[in-house]
Amino acid sequence: MSNGLKIVTIGGGSSYTPELVEGFIKRYDKLPVKELWLVDIPEGKEKLNIVGGLAKRMVDKAGIPMQIHLSLDRREAMKDADFVTTQFRVGLLDARALDERIPLKYGVIGQETNGPGGLFKGLRTIPVILDICKDMEELCPDAWLINFTNPAGMVTEAVLRYSNIKKVVGLCNVPVGMKMSVAEMLGVEGERVHIDFAGLNHMVFGLDVYMDGKKVTEQVIDLLTGGEQSGMTMKNIKDLGWEKEFIQALGILPCPYHRYYYQTSKMLEQELEAARTVGTRAEVVKKIEAELFELYQDPELDIKPPQLEQRGGAYYSDAACNLIDSIYNDKRDIQPVNVKNNGAIASIPAESAVEINCVITKEGPVPIAMGDLPVAVRGLVQQIKSFERVAAEAAVTGDYKTALLAMTINPLVPSDSVAKQILDEMLEAHKKYLPQFFKDASKDASPLQN
Amino acid sequence: MSNGLKIVTIGGGSSYTPELVEGFIKRYDKLPVKELWLVDIPEGKEKLNIVGGLAKRMVDKAGIPMQIHLSLDRREAMKDADFVTTQFRVGLLDARALDERIPLKYGVIGQETNGPGGLFKGLRTIPVILDICKDMEELCPDAWLINFTNPAGMVTEAVLRYSNIKKVVGLCNVPVGMKMSVAEMLGVEGERVHIDFAGLNHMVFGLDVYMDGKKVTEQVIDLLTGGEQSGMTMKNIKDLGWEKEFIQALGILPCPYHRYYYQTSKMLEQELEAARTVGTRAEVVKKIEAELFELYQDPELDIKPPQLEQRGGAYYSDAACNLIDSIYNDKRDIQPVNVKNNGAIASIPAESAVEINCVITKEGPVPIAMGDLPVAVRGLVQQIKSFERVAAEAAVTGDYKTALLAMTINPLVPSDSVAKQILDEMLEAHKKYLPQFFKDASKDASPLQN
Amino acid sequence: MSNGLKIVTIGGGSSYTPELVEGFIKRYDKLPVKELWLVDIPEGKEKLNIVGGLAKRMVDKAGIPMQIHLSLDRREAMKDADFVTTQFRVGLLDARALDERIPLKYGVIGQETNGPGGLFKGLRTIPVILDICKDMEELCPDAWLINFTNPAGMVTEAVLRYSNIKKVVGLCNVPVGMKMSVAEMLGVEGERVHIDFAGLNHMVFGLDVYMDGKKVTEQVIDLLTGGEQSGMTMKNIKDLGWEKEFIQALGILPCPYHRYYYQTSKMLEQELEAARTVGTRAEVVKKIEAELFELYQDPELDIKPPQLEQRGGAYYSDAACNLIDSIYNDKRDIQPVNVKNNGAIASIPAESAVEINCVITKEGPVPIAMGDLPVAVRGLVQQIKSFERVAAEAAVTGDYKTALLAMTINPLVPSDSVAKQILDEMLEAHKKYLPQFFKDASKDASPLQN
Amino acid sequence: MSNGLKIVTIGGGSSYTPELVEGFIKRYDKLPVKELWLVDIPEGKEKLNIVGGLAKRMVDKAGIPMQIHLSLDRREAMKDADFVTTQFRVGLLDARALDERIPLKYGVIGQETNGPGGLFKGLRTIPVILDICKDMEELCPDAWLINFTNPAGMVTEAVLRYSNIKKVVGLCNVPVGMKMSVAEMLGVEGERVHIDFAGLNHMVFGLDVYMDGKKVTEQVIDLLTGGEQSGMTMKNIKDLGWEKEFIQALGILPCPYHRYYYQTSKMLEQELEAARTVGTRAEVVKKIEAELFELYQDPELDIKPPQLEQRGGAYYSDAACNLIDSIYNDKRDIQPVNVKNNGAIASIPAESAVEINCVITKEGPVPIAMGDLPVAVRGLVQQIKSFERVAAEAAVTGDYKTALLAMTINPLVPSDSVAKQILDEMLEAHKKYLPQFFKDASKDASPLQN
Repeated sequence: MSNGLKIVTIGGGSSYTPELVEGFIKRYDKLPVKELWLVDIPEGKEKLNIVGGLAKRMVDKAGIPMQIHLSLDRREAMKDADFVTTQFRVGLLDARALDERIPLKYGVIGQETNGPGGLFKGLRTIPVILDICKDMEELCPDAWLINFTNPAGMVTEAVLRYSNIKKVVGLCNVPVGMKMSVAEMLGVEGERVHIDFAGLNHMVFGLDVYMDGKKVTEQVIDLLTGGEQSGMTMKNIKDLGWEKEFIQALGILPCPYHRYYYQTSKMLEQELEAARTVGTRAEVVKKIEAELFELYQDPELDIKPPQLEQRGGAYYSDAACNLIDSIYNDKRDIQPVNVKNNGAIASIPAESAVEINCVITKEGPVPIAMGDLPVAVRGLVQQIKSFERVAAEAAVTGDYKTALLAMTINPLVPSDSVAKQILDEMLEAHKKYLPQFFKDASKDASPLQN
Repeated sequence: MSNGLKIVTIGGGSSYTPELVEGFIKRYDKLPVKELWLVDIPEGKEKLNIVGGLAKRMVDKAGIPMQIHLSLDRREAMKDADFVTTQFRVGLLDARALDERIPLKYGVIGQETNGPGGLFKGLRTIPVILDICKDMEELCPDAWLINFTNPAGMVTEAVLRYSNIKKVVGLCNVPVGMKMSVAEMLGVEGERVHIDFAGLNHMVFGLDVYMDGKKVTEQVIDLLTGGEQSGMTMKNIKDLGWEKEFIQALGILPCPYHRYYYQTSKMLEQELEAARTVGTRAEVVKKIEAELFELYQDPELDIKPPQLEQRGGAYYSDAACNLIDSIYNDKRDIQPVNVKNNGAIASIPAESAVEINCVITKEGPVPIAMGDLPVAVRGLVQQIKSFERVAAEAAVTGDYKTALLAMTINPLVPSDSVAKQILDEMLEAHKKYLPQFFKDASKDASPLQN
Repeated sequence: MSNGLKIVTIGGGSSYTPELVEGFIKRYDKLPVKELWLVDIPEGKEKLNIVGGLAKRMVDKAGIPMQIHLSLDRREAMKDADFVTTQFRVGLLDARALDERIPLKYGVIGQETNGPGGLFKGLRTIPVILDICKDMEELCPDAWLINFTNPAGMVTEAVLRYSNIKKVVGLCNVPVGMKMSVAEMLGVEGERVHIDFAGLNHMVFGLDVYMDGKKVTEQVIDLLTGGEQSGMTMKNIKDLGWEKEFIQALGILPCPYHRYYYQTSKMLEQELEAARTVGTRAEVVKKIEAELFELYQDPELDIKPPQLEQRGGAYYSDAACNLIDSIYNDKRDIQPVNVKNNGAIASIPAESAVEINCVITKEGPVPIAMGDLPVAVRGLVQQIKSFERVAAEAAVTGDYKTALLAMTINPLVPSDSVAKQILDEMLEAHKKYLPQFFKDASKDASPLQN
Repeated sequence: MSNGLKIVTIGGGSSYTPELVEGFIKRYDKLPVKELWLVDIPEGKEKLNIVGGLAKRMVDKAGIPMQIHLSLDRREAMKDADFVTTQFRVGLLDARALDERIPLKYGVIGQETNGPGGLFKGLRTIPVILDICKDMEELCPDAWLINFTNPAGMVTEAVLRYSNIKKVVGLCNVPVGMKMSVAEMLGVEGERVHIDFAGLNHMVFGLDVYMDGKKVTEQVIDLLTGGEQSGMTMKNIKDLGWEKEFIQALGILPCPYHRYYYQTSKMLEQELEAARTVGTRAEVVKKIEAELFELYQDPELDIKPPQLEQRGGAYYSDAACNLIDSIYNDKRDIQPVNVKNNGAIASIPAESAVEINCVITKEGPVPIAMGDLPVAVRGLVQQIKSFERVAAEAAVTGDYKTALLAMTINPLVPSDSVAKQILDEMLEAHKKYLPQFFKDASKDASPLQN
């Protein structure tokens, strides 16, 4: 890294890329990114060129010597990289729309990370990530893999269990979003707030909240449940409010995604309504993205356009760049990321991925011991961890029964029969991206018949 | 115990009692019960007299010197007892009917052990059990408490955590029922089959099945999922069949109650149908019981009437009497019971109650180490354990928020709002039996308003 | 096994063999051993013939159709075996004498199992055991490996960690010896006494003692420490008495080998004295063995000669035959053996070998959950477990530094420098049996110089 | 704390106090100590006045408004304190000399923290600390207890288990000393070095070493074992050198105190030699202290005299003041301290005290998850933890047998009989400071006779 960093972003044609570029530009002094390689697949060439053009204009405007490389050759790009970031979407938004629409047909929430949709996103994504890991072993064995691709928990679990890459971190903007919401509720700057995060990706809790170092958990819970609007939500999850006494008894801060599990019926209703009217989240995002790429094409544009914030990736750039910055500069600050548990949460196996506050060092994130989660939430967290592990196994083996097992044990799925119906329809729908399940397809065997 | 045993049965007026009496009669040679005290509350006096009369005739016919005492004075009965068995039902079958009916109004299965109904059965039962424990400390400190009252897991958890009684065992006939079903499927005598049971009450799994000592788990799973009828069910749970590939991927034997969680939508439908037609289980049982008591009154009857078997307590007598026999005679045979885990199941806290195979000794059951449950089921088991612990805490404290927490985290309940609605209606309906929640009722404060 | 069992005894020329033969003869009705193969190495041919001759005469006298085969070809013998028992001694008693004498030169107890001597016995034995395991995979994959060779704990640990054989049990006569001593102290038959055994091989404790099922632990501790002689010892460990208050505070029964750790200075003195006078234990045993083989040669002898009992293997035959009997007949009785912990002792890793009470089934021993050892002994037990694991690793890798690490962390060794001196002298002395440490010996490299 | 901090130092008359005062003066800007109360017992009045005089002159010279209060009334001093620091020595250096000399008579190292001497230091100290805790509950319930008094691990364990004070940190200068030694070996400033510390007090290891964030553990081990002198030691432990291959196989950095356990025979020899010639460490320190107090009396002296550094408390001031600074200012930097483990070291119980890197926050230190210690050292660490726990129990109960148990299980003590002899002589020698063991002394009962 002596002459500056080489960073490779797989899925570089994503609409999120300008955020990342902006983040690197802002930090160039302390985090000298010499080469940023944006990599995509041939189908994404056009988007890559658009985003790449904007990235180059942004760098030019900033007047820094950061080289932007665009490439369709992943292996060429990865050579001697210092960081590989992954933000691709196998099957694009169309696949996500199916992840959302098919379960809804059966009265089930799709949920693109910890639900049936997340299962299929994992089945499509994990084999690609493991391929990238193999390439890393060969081409950039000292690099860090920073994964933003959802389902980030399941993907991190898969890398920890099924690859030789140990330098992996899963990243999500949910914790930073929670922190900023809390700061807003308290009427203070974000940096004065600290939250003890522990749990799994999209299943993370704020065990305690501090303002200027003093615990204010109870006050924040009161604020959170006091009014009409909890204030604590993500762009893609409508704020439905919590039962005050429930959260008070819980005694910790849920994340926005907890609504899928503690407010299942309300969320389902709302998703059905959206599907009927404005479209599912994927369909909405598709429109936003089309508009964004329209903007990105403007040769006059040389900054990140403000419209990007509606896309849902708030604080995403900060989270990603802060992480890379802290690793590169051995900052030893505290950030919530997805890593191997190593005892930090008592009731999760030591070798499993968790989302937890870590000290970020040059040798990677080191989790802070949180003891255990409150009794009341251990079950649900364990259930999602079971789901992640079985799903990761299904993704790797391509075994139909294992996939059915993962689908059935998901807390959003109401029965083994419904699980089988959804599974079969989704396998067929995503067939193209799931070769591991259709190995003998040439011999006319379908996984659905075995 | 030198001159024979004194056994006290709380809830002695139950229709099950003749089973127990028959069991003691059969084993009199090795298990000399000198005094059997049947205790009930004043409201149950009539039933107690009927059942007691039958018990006396049965003993007379057997020609053994077992004294049957009928009593409405629990403390008098408990003096110097060797075993206290509990099989009472606070609020009788009417309360159970409410446990079933109220949740159904909200589209939720009541489930009298691990569902919303079980929560309320626990809230009504646990304070009474803890009172009995206090009496035991004073009146028969060396006695064993053998609890058959449901929810047996939650009750055992509560005794372990909130009383000073260490000699407690929770007993259920589900494991023995599973064993007999498997034996039937295999076409062999029950004694040739052994199952490694591990889990929680009504959430127990058969991790492996052996015939004549050789593992036959896979064969049994094939038999279980092969035909139209699984054959493996309880009287009070309709056989709905499992998805074959799901159970094969699971690789272990579910218990009948697992259908509530892995076939939730089907079970709900079936319960709604039953509620509309034949009535809920409580309502059906009420009729059966009325008929049974009709029979019991017959002064000519001096054996356990065969109709009792329809009541659903198959093998109940054997399970109970075998347990007492093995403790009394230090038999060191293996029986599945509910006791403190002590490390036998890795992912359950050591001090929590589990249902597990134990060596039954004079000093009580000692659990056999099972390592861990398969990954796929750890989540659900942990979730029910979380539910049991929070529910037990609510039963002891009478805290409204804790009760709401228990209700919301139950896997059958679809949202915090529905949880609150069901909770509020059930608290009101069972008010009479839940003084701990209405401590200040005189001052017009309702728990529902705080 | 349909036509009776085939048992292969590696180290069949041992003086212990007549015990084993007697055991099988006594149990022939329920444990029909059709073929007993006694296997030894060419150097042991003479002894094998002598012992084999006696075995044949014993079987003839008993009039049972058990075939005795003598063989120097291990692989031929192992074909389709049902049980492989191992009782060999690499380097014979001369090697054990070195294991004892060399450490004594440095003022250190040798201790053939958990001391420096045990380290070298492990280094010599483990590679041979692992070879046998490889042969088993090929020649008798369904067989059980019953290991009596010391250090039995370290050997079991090595098989669990470094072979594919899962059906392995380590066996020792210390627990049954403790039980018989306790019975004698209490003045009752052995079968009326039960002890909760838990710990490691030669580091096992009696957590509780029961007579006719009732706890009598305190009384036994009083008896144990009350008089001049504790009564609780092994043939090869002089009874030196315990400090009464120490054992009372411990609250559990130590095994005879605990004297090496809790009475180190006294034991050292006694061993130095013996080495000066009667010889070390190996030297004494050598004389006894010579006498035994003299006896065995007598063509008139057709029973196990009573003199064998002085050899130190009391109850050895019973322990071994009972184990095989219970596995073969799925007896589900309780026996203390060395197996994978699986959570039975909380503070020992689940995958490590422990010596613990197990239910003995056709599928092997299943440990009974003991919770945890008392705080006071956890450290020492963990230290021996650390020693066993590092020693097993050294045996497999032949790595000098790892061997030095094992030697230094042994609680009997007073410093890293003394460890190095003993290690170097012992490596040289046992060179012939430690090829893994002298891989490049031809190229004049010595492990001692690296 | 709005108007600045109030700090109370129990044992304020210690020769270390000027270090502490200097530390507070240096940090006054960010850590405004308004009141520093130096508290001592009547016997220490003269020293308190001398040290207090120097402290006042130092503050005057610095020109800051820090008030120095001298008091013999602990309770008066503690009122509304923000931090209570403890650095007292029950029985003064004379008691420590006995802790060292008596064991040596029996050929045993005294070792004032984790040896027989440490046991008695704990027996004398823990009751006083627990009294202070009770006063804190009443007089300054929000204060932090920062304990420097040895044995710091045992004392922290005792506070965690036997008091209601949760805000307790044990502090030691060994880790910072190791870090500075490593920095010196590497020829860099201390701040460029980071070490992953984990273990127990005076039994802490450096699991990995980093320079500028990159792992350099192997290089440091080579440096440590390469030359004649390891360079890594404490003032009070002579550098005796390690066996190179041993440390290489260990793969982690031992602390200076590990020599007592891995080089026992050498350390014993050296201590016997010192006792014969220059005196034990206590006797040497006594002379140094006399000289220091001579210096402190000089009314011209208004700085910490450089001679204090020979006393052995290097970095002590920095460690203490940095800890208080980071708590007060919520700095979230990483410091090695003694706190509740909470899962940070896998094989130590979650509720036990460990010495481990923590993030230091306003709410106290939060340990960083280290997974587990290497197998090779787990045993010894667990043994010292067992010793600490049993010793703490003995200190609280005053039970003779428990004390004998603690003494016997200490790895430096060679037998139960020697343990009893040392225990009896030390109990008699320290009788005055061990009222809990002599409760019925008036009635002529001695604990030695029971």
